[in-house]
Amino acid sequence: MRNIKLVLQYDGTGYHGWQIQPDKKTVCGIFKQSLSRLINESPVIHASSRTDSGVHALCQVVNFRTASHIPAESIRTALNSMLPEDICVVSVENTGQDFHACYSAKSRMYRYTIRNASVPSPFDRQYSYHYPFKLDIADMAEAAEHILGTHDFSAFKSARGEKSNRVRTVFSAEISARGEYVRFEISADGFLTYMVRNIAGTLLEIGRGKIPPFGIKDILSSKDRCKAGPTLPARGLFLVHVGYGSDLLK
Amino acid sequence: MRNIKLVLQYDGTGYHGWQIQPDKKTVCGIFKQSLSRLINESPVIHASSRTDSGVHALCQVVNFRTASHIPAESIRTALNSMLPEDICVVSVENTGQDFHACYSAKSRMYRYTIRNASVPSPFDRQYSYHYPFKLDIADMAEAAEHILGTHDFSAFKSARGEKSNRVRTVFSAEISARGEYVRFEISADGFLTYMVRNIAGTLLEIGRGKIPPFGIKDILSSKDRCKAGPTLPARGLFLVHVGYGSDLLK
Repeated sequence: MRNIKLVLQYDGTGYHGWQIQPDKKTVCGIFKQSLSRLINESPVIHASSRTDSGVHALCQVVNFRTASHIPAESIRTALNSMLPEDICVVSVENTGQDFHACYSAKSRMYRYTIRNASVPSPFDRQYSYHYPFKLDIADMAEAAEHILGTHDFSAFKSARGEKSNRVRTVFSAEISARGEYVRFEISADGFLTYMVRNIAGTLLEIGRGKIPPFGIKDILSSKDRCKAGPTLPARGLFLVHVGYGSDLLK
Repeated sequence: MRNIKLVLQYDGTGYHGWQIQPDKKTVCGIFKQSLSRLINESPVIHASSRTDSGVHALCQVVNFRTASHIPAESIRTALNSMLPEDICVVSVENTGQDFHACYSAKSRMYRYTIRNASVPSPFDRQYSYHYPFKLDIADMAEAAEHILGTHDFSAFKSARGEKSNRVRTVFSAEISARGEYVRFEISADGFLTYMVRNIAGTLLEIGRGKIPPFGIKDILSSKDRCKAGPTLPARGLFLVHVGYGSDLLK
């Protein structure tokens, strides 16, 4: 059995997230339909991250085992002609038997994009969160630094989220502003459900001056979800990178 | 009666073009609904261009007359809260009685965007045309120059298009390439139906080497639609600028 590593991009707007669910259109569900038809098997698909409903991916890494002899490049071309336009296969390669898209991953990077302008844009409304109020970027960047390192992220969990082990290690957390766009990029060994969107919502409150930059330390140590900012909408969130081994800190 | 000039942006994906049509969702139809509710009148709306079904606008200029006393900036804010997310009002101003969004316009600029990459992108599929074959950009740019000036553009009309007066003056026609994107920008005093998409389709044939760059001169002088390339899809086309008076050649 070959072990195939495959990288996907998708626009999550029309999907109930990655994970297969009964009676719901999900990215993995639609992807698996096409893949199963192509290789005439029904493989188990492992993914680097279970993106939530409406979240996008520039780089979702998956792997599956198959007895098929179809060359990797032909799998890519065939799948792209079968898949709907909002899901694309970027690359396909044969990989070692040990590779597991989720368990082998050492880091995931997510990006949250805020469009900070008075007028909304019809063109990136599905890929950013429109926020018309003035933001202090330096304060947001300072606050982002306070979440670096290993912490219990209970204050940024979701109501329905993880019951235990809410400790994660954040490798990088950066705010950048360019034109009308403010981006928050965060890389960690893993994320709690809604963690990126909750941190981004808190950084917005800081950018508006409602919370001082160091306030995020108190929120973090309180482990109290009620102290943090709102969960920002899924539309602004992208899975942008998954690190395996040597590119851990990238 | 005040004469109001208003600039709109819209994602044309979900609309049957600009112009109001019975039983069809059109940009002007939806816009007029919100405007009429706001000012409690049913004004005649003049627009710089009647964009076709699926075509987008970064800058659609309209004007209408109203007895309403609502300040211009409040009209903008109110309309943006009433309109769907795929239509936005960029600016509103009181203008002179002589101003007419269509008749006062001296030039319109359209942009056609081609995504020239082997793999399609899920994120700009609604805003560009994916074309995976290698293109000779220099040949396309050379060909574009041949359409400058005043010509009978019958060879680039649509089947259902203008019956007479197919003479237009092209002020600028440029090809630019950046990363995976090839852009064709054309400015003229006016355009026949499908003219930009038909010229863009012909430029693609030239870029692939099927027609030599000077071949576009023969196509133009033949006035024969059958000699030109295919009509490219609406999704890649944007109305980007309308020139009034002093900014004629911009």
